[in-house]
Amino acid sequence: MVAARLIDNIWATRKAESLNGYKFMLAEIIGGTREGERLIVADIISAGIGDRVIVSTGSSARRMLGSDDIPIDAVVIGIIDEDCQFI
Amino acid sequence: MVAARLIDNIWATRKAESLNGYKFMLAEIIGGTREGERLIVADIISAGIGDRVIVSTGSSARRMLGSDDIPIDAVVIGIIDEDCQFI
Amino acid sequence: MVAARLIDNIWATRKAESLNGYKFMLAEIIGGTREGERLIVADIISAGIGDRVIVSTGSSARRMLGSDDIPIDAVVIGIIDEDCQFI
Amino acid sequence: MVAARLIDNIWATRKAESLNGYKFMLAEIIGGTREGERLIVADIISAGIGDRVIVSTGSSARRMLGSDDIPIDAVVIGIIDEDCQFI
Amino acid sequence: MVAARLIDNIWATRKAESLNGYKFMLAEIIGGTREGERLIVADIISAGIGDRVIVSTGSSARRMLGSDDIPIDAVVIGIIDEDCQFI
Repeated sequence: MVAARLIDNIWATRKAESLNGYKFMLAEIIGGTREGERLIVADIISAGIGDRVIVSTGSSARRMLGSDDIPIDAVVIGIIDEDCQFI
Repeated sequence: MVAARLIDNIWATRKAESLNGYKFMLAEIIGGTREGERLIVADIISAGIGDRVIVSTGSSARRMLGSDDIPIDAVVIGIIDEDCQFI
Repeated sequence: MVAARLIDNIWATRKAESLNGYKFMLAEIIGGTREGERLIVADIISAGIGDRVIVSTGSSARRMLGSDDIPIDAVVIGIIDEDCQFI
Repeated sequence: MVAARLIDNIWATRKAESLNGYKFMLAEIIGGTREGERLIVADIISAGIGDRVIVSTGSSARRMLGSDDIPIDAVVIGIIDEDCQFI
Repeated sequence: MVAARLIDNIWATRKAESLNGYKFMLAEIIGGTREGERLIVADIISAGIGDRVIVSTGSSARRMLGSDDIPIDAVVIGIIDEDCQFI
């Protein structure tokens, strides 16, 4: 997984039907040499802009969703505690 | 997923039979440290050159297709709204 | 896999229910051109901060877990021997 | 997928038995920030050195092969038309 | 796949039980823009330090192993012929 900060919402009205109801957000990796890399993630645990989150990618990301048939490859799996100060 | 702009069409007459009927396009990642990275994506939701899209990769990409047997690893899953101004 | 050093703990109280009981740690890749790249890994073999570990990613990471339904994409699969001095 | 140019053959007499009969080639990514990155790909559609090809990777690459049990993670899925001039 | 040179052994006494009997080695990518990137690979075809090898990654790597349940994501699938001089 990677640590990332949610920095914005992404709106896409035209999309695959199976994606209806999912919230997409722009995330930016924090820390280390990938700092500043951006990815679009789906969120189903009510994270918000500014939150630091744990993002899982690939087939593992689909394990957060109700079905294995959703074409999503990056999902917020946890919100890092506000008082968690990692290096 | 990544945010990318569709910048051209890719034509390949000689290809796997299972790919017949798919449209391939050249996409360029926008924003963050991967800006300018290119990938070839399949599009089945009628996106066009110039559109900003959400691209899903890996096994999740195949979830956009009718069958799990297509050797495609990157697909447009949504078109970002024109008035969506993300950072 | 990659060689990485565990450098901190990651605490996330709000997370997917299926993740309860898993310990998350911040790992930093050591050696080669990816030196300094960070990832968040799950650990189930009692590794500790400072340990050099072998990290497996993607669907293979889930093979360390009791179930294939856990949305985790990076796991510690081994602790590198303290007297193992690789280049 | 990525656009790449086939630049050489790779010969490996000692290899997994399941790989017998597959042709391996060295490919170099063309265009964008990954220009010059190399990967080894399998080819089953008679591409040749100098050809520009579409390469699919990961589990999707295995969808080009007769069986899902072949340990190959990158395959040529199409040959880009010679008169296709993309940016 | 990637072309890499095996540069050292990796010893990990504490590891997942399913990994017992596997030999782990440090590999360094050769050629192209990823030159010098390191990864840890499993070897079951008796490759040795100094050998140039073909490394397969991800779920495809597990196709080299007796079982799909091994948490390994990178495996040597072939040893490049000593007289194979690629660019």
